Amino acid sequence: MKIRNSFAVTILGNASAVPTANRNLTSQLVQYGTNRFLVDCGEGTQLQMIKYRVKQTNLNHIFISHLHGDHFYGLFGLISTFHLFGRTKPLAIFAPQALKDLLDHVLQVSNTTLRFELNFHNLEDFGDKPVYENDHFKITCFPVVHRIPTWGFKFEEKHGIRKINKAFLAEYAPDIATIKAIKAGDGYKAPNGKVYSHNEITEAPLNPRSYVYCADTAYDTSLAPYLFGADLVYHEATFDDSMEALAIEKFHATARHAALQARQAQVKKLLLGHFSARHTSLEGLLEEARSVFENTLISEEGIRYPVE
Amino acid sequence: MKIRNSFAVTILGNASAVPTANRNLTSQLVQYGTNRFLVDCGEGTQLQMIKYRVKQTNLNHIFISHLHGDHFYGLFGLISTFHLFGRTKPLAIFAPQALKDLLDHVLQVSNTTLRFELNFHNLEDFGDKPVYENDHFKITCFPVVHRIPTWGFKFEEKHGIRKINKAFLAEYAPDIATIKAIKAGDGYKAPNGKVYSHNEITEAPLNPRSYVYCADTAYDTSLAPYLFGADLVYHEATFDDSMEALAIEKFHATARHAALQARQAQVKKLLLGHFSARHTSLEGLLEEARSVFENTLISEEGIRYPVE
Repeated sequence: MKIRNSFAVTILGNASAVPTANRNLTSQLVQYGTNRFLVDCGEGTQLQMIKYRVKQTNLNHIFISHLHGDHFYGLFGLISTFHLFGRTKPLAIFAPQALKDLLDHVLQVSNTTLRFELNFHNLEDFGDKPVYENDHFKITCFPVVHRIPTWGFKFEEKHGIRKINKAFLAEYAPDIATIKAIKAGDGYKAPNGKVYSHNEITEAPLNPRSYVYCADTAYDTSLAPYLFGADLVYHEATFDDSMEALAIEKFHATARHAALQARQAQVKKLLLGHFSARHTSLEGLLEEARSVFENTLISEEGIRYPVE
Repeated sequence: MKIRNSFAVTILGNASAVPTANRNLTSQLVQYGTNRFLVDCGEGTQLQMIKYRVKQTNLNHIFISHLHGDHFYGLFGLISTFHLFGRTKPLAIFAPQALKDLLDHVLQVSNTTLRFELNFHNLEDFGDKPVYENDHFKITCFPVVHRIPTWGFKFEEKHGIRKINKAFLAEYAPDIATIKAIKAGDGYKAPNGKVYSHNEITEAPLNPRSYVYCADTAYDTSLAPYLFGADLVYHEATFDDSMEALAIEKFHATARHAALQARQAQVKKLLLGHFSARHTSLEGLLEEARSVFENTLISEEGIRYPVE
């Protein structure tokens, strides 16, 4: 069995606009291997991190989808807490440009001179280029459809290369140069003259996994390519279908909209979030979505959803 | 028995700098009769208001003691929630001047055009004049001693006037003009010629009650006049006495400092707050303070402390 990096999302808040007794404002932690990424940071995110024991370790990148307060008013306190706990590692913030001056203004008014670098990245500058990338993993942003400029984020493993069979390695113990050649696509001619094709001595890589965070968005089928085939998609479902007119007016989606999008984009699993305070029970939203797209879940705070 | 306006403070948060699993950032609600005042507004204040069922009704004045983030980062979300719930009543904010531009900046970046008036008042402008006043009650601010300009707040009943005896009113049923004259200090000559002095036909007013919020402050005996004789004082006790050097360096107080101040200022009751996250148990702080000033309590979130 191949060991894969763990890949999961933990919901810290899934309330829309205003918090309720049971639901906090939007934030979630995406974790891939040892890397951890915070997506949105509504007021109270640092409190939710304490509650659900989400450590600050290896949390060096924060993504803010858009500048409605329920998605970023927790950033000031979180940065302050990083500072007070003696953080020295740089912190990268990816957000719409207007947040940069505001962060500077907040720090200046609060008399805070950070002991760590705050590196700001304007989401508008990336286009198709990854906002984050390492050897195995990349994150891209894409525009969604909301009242103000808003971005979704796609977290995905890179396509792996074929791995050399262990049995082959054990039998022939090829030298480094030969291994490099095989990795680059060559076959192998054994000392006894037997010839192996590249595919005979290598194994197919595992399918790369992906998670998409759709942020606040209206239902717009043109977004489907960004979601296509994802293993897990978090999509807003602010309202139920009885409030479709309000959803359209506010550039939000209903649970049915989210499910239609998931079905069209052939995603594996749909996680609903960003629920209006008007919905005290979420059963109706789940039923509504499942009637269109069966593999739907209601996101729950503090729960870690694996991407698999 | 005379019926008095209810007068109390409800603690919403009493943590210093960073929140912990059990303690939220500074905020408290002072209530006098039907008037309600919010003092400081750390991140999560609106969440605490939901948790402890503190309604937004008649909450029209917010006081911010100083511009360290743990005392005002919750203001943005609270104002946004007022807006989203359709508030139309003006809201008055009393704070250091630099907060005004920052509030405007936050609202602009968040694309929020409030449906209610936000009236900003610079605490530096008041001097000895009340920051709030009605017929029975007034609030004044006073400078305390911290790293940055910081204000404490005194909430006090005004001295009442002597009230006319009910028995006297029943016996002689004086006309309006006579009642006015008595209220202004006159005595009374009855139709039968009997003469009553002013004090014979009136009752002394109840002693006016007062509550003082000391905010973040170093121990400084020159502050005692502002606290003098108060029925209840909330004083910071960030550290215990073993950390006195740190307290002095940071312009904070220890539990013993708070108790010394309370004793010197002859206050009736002392409520400790603003506890450092280093203190997981608060028993030591309570003992330390009580050894100097017996009538001390550790403030607890969600608890309503009457001023009596």
